[in-house]
Amino acid sequence: MNFKTIHDIHHCFDHALQPVETISSGDTRCFDIQDASGGLIQKESQADILTRLPHDALNPVCGPLFIEDADPGDVIEIELEDFEPGAWGWTGLIPGFGLLADDFTQPWLKISEYDSESVYFRDDIVIPFRPFAGTIGLAPAEPGQHSIVPPRLCGGNLDIRDLVKGSKLYLPVQVRGGLLSIGDTHACQGDGEVCGTAVETGMKATATIRLHKGDRILAPMFDMPPVERDQSLNEGFIVTTGVGADLMQGARDAVRFMMDRLVKKAGMEEEMAYALCSVAGQLRISEIVDQPNWVVSCYMPKAIFKSTSLKAI
Amino acid sequence: MNFKTIHDIHHCFDHALQPVETISSGDTRCFDIQDASGGLIQKESQADILTRLPHDALNPVCGPLFIEDADPGDVIEIELEDFEPGAWGWTGLIPGFGLLADDFTQPWLKISEYDSESVYFRDDIVIPFRPFAGTIGLAPAEPGQHSIVPPRLCGGNLDIRDLVKGSKLYLPVQVRGGLLSIGDTHACQGDGEVCGTAVETGMKATATIRLHKGDRILAPMFDMPPVERDQSLNEGFIVTTGVGADLMQGARDAVRFMMDRLVKKAGMEEEMAYALCSVAGQLRISEIVDQPNWVVSCYMPKAIFKSTSLKAI
Repeated sequence: MNFKTIHDIHHCFDHALQPVETISSGDTRCFDIQDASGGLIQKESQADILTRLPHDALNPVCGPLFIEDADPGDVIEIELEDFEPGAWGWTGLIPGFGLLADDFTQPWLKISEYDSESVYFRDDIVIPFRPFAGTIGLAPAEPGQHSIVPPRLCGGNLDIRDLVKGSKLYLPVQVRGGLLSIGDTHACQGDGEVCGTAVETGMKATATIRLHKGDRILAPMFDMPPVERDQSLNEGFIVTTGVGADLMQGARDAVRFMMDRLVKKAGMEEEMAYALCSVAGQLRISEIVDQPNWVVSCYMPKAIFKSTSLKAI
Repeated sequence: MNFKTIHDIHHCFDHALQPVETISSGDTRCFDIQDASGGLIQKESQADILTRLPHDALNPVCGPLFIEDADPGDVIEIELEDFEPGAWGWTGLIPGFGLLADDFTQPWLKISEYDSESVYFRDDIVIPFRPFAGTIGLAPAEPGQHSIVPPRLCGGNLDIRDLVKGSKLYLPVQVRGGLLSIGDTHACQGDGEVCGTAVETGMKATATIRLHKGDRILAPMFDMPPVERDQSLNEGFIVTTGVGADLMQGARDAVRFMMDRLVKKAGMEEEMAYALCSVAGQLRISEIVDQPNWVVSCYMPKAIFKSTSLKAI
């Protein structure tokens, strides 16, 4: 079935933006989403392009859509129906951006091909293809232009890896019409997106939008569908931890220790190890009550590793 | 097969403690683990017991074992072989303890029966039985008595829900012999253990201990076995988020918003909702790079809900 496609893009959240269309609750639209570089990164691009990206062209999102009858205090549901993928994506280390930005000051770029099953990250690393939209947001009540980068209580660049097909995201409406925009599609990503990028790729995403009057919520929530056999469970996980009094430091430590294993035990280059933690590692808070030390864990699924040296880290 | 059982307990980590036994790499021992109250909480106990627990009797751990030839710089592997469960456990809100300690100042106690399949948390809430040891640790290098409560770089009260049968935990040795102790068995727990307790229950735990000479690691890490069909994936998840500049606040918000759904949509009492987030909710860091706002998510598996009102939160 073909639904009307939204091609219009914009580069900030701003409730003064002219909506591209007014839709009714229950309408379905297809969003023609560009990758986070707005098409500037091509398959042949070299790493130095990451230092020359014009900020005002980055993070394009499709929209905004005005949802009829939506008012502050209501909730907009976005049911993700389908993703029509491309064939390749990019993962980059962008100077100044990412969990370990102080350690990685040089640009680094990795192109990965993918198909409907797998992302071919390296000859010996194959990650399940699991497309989702990193950015799904409504316009903030506060006037003015707001960067697409940080997520907010009305959604935006949430980068939640489970906003996959079948998920229903619920966002609190802050302005009349809600003003929904979607962008930043990823072929796969871990929990945390620690290097700052996933496998970034344009896609067509189809979503049905519904209005729930007066169902007040304060922050985004979502309903995730049953998980069919999850390939990443098949061979277990290697898990590193960060233990200490600060969750941010714990996350950094857990990622660094995972990178250490990849670098020292399997000879991986540091940039690749960092990027792999971003596209496949999963950050969880294992314990947040045993004062004064918390535990953040980085889970790496072993099923993605196709060589014995990687499986043995 | 019957392995020698360790019954001796102690109540702090201290490298001056006399080891109960010297073992060799590859030895297997059974640990006769008491619940975190040291047996003081009984099936008939009332909530007020939580305000009268003597601190020096809490958090008993079995051990310590001296591992032959273990020296600082080495690694001790603990392979969890088996858990022999009891029949009931307790979940408590202890004044002054827990992620939302400021909101819950009164003691609250919940007894749950369990069997080899399920923890019967409430008539309409059945959680998969998934036993693990919350505390597995070596003695710290720093002299003196150290509380069992906080985990450290040499392990301890890590409360990692995936330290289940088949997992291999690796801990860095800080003192000669390592001095291994195990305790704090749980019938099930989420990621975070947000109310401060899980389903607390004594068990016999069997583990094989191996020494890896010179395999320097800086913090605990573990190898988690393949996951057979995970019941909690069968019906998907309800997920709430905390979005903002502080991960601790994000975790609090995500848990509060999950509790809100349970209380407002399903009429659950607040204390029960908080405890449920602790025993079944899973805290993940969805995004930690989109400055200045991070996303912490609380995942609640819908398969544990057996009533339509709960499934519809």
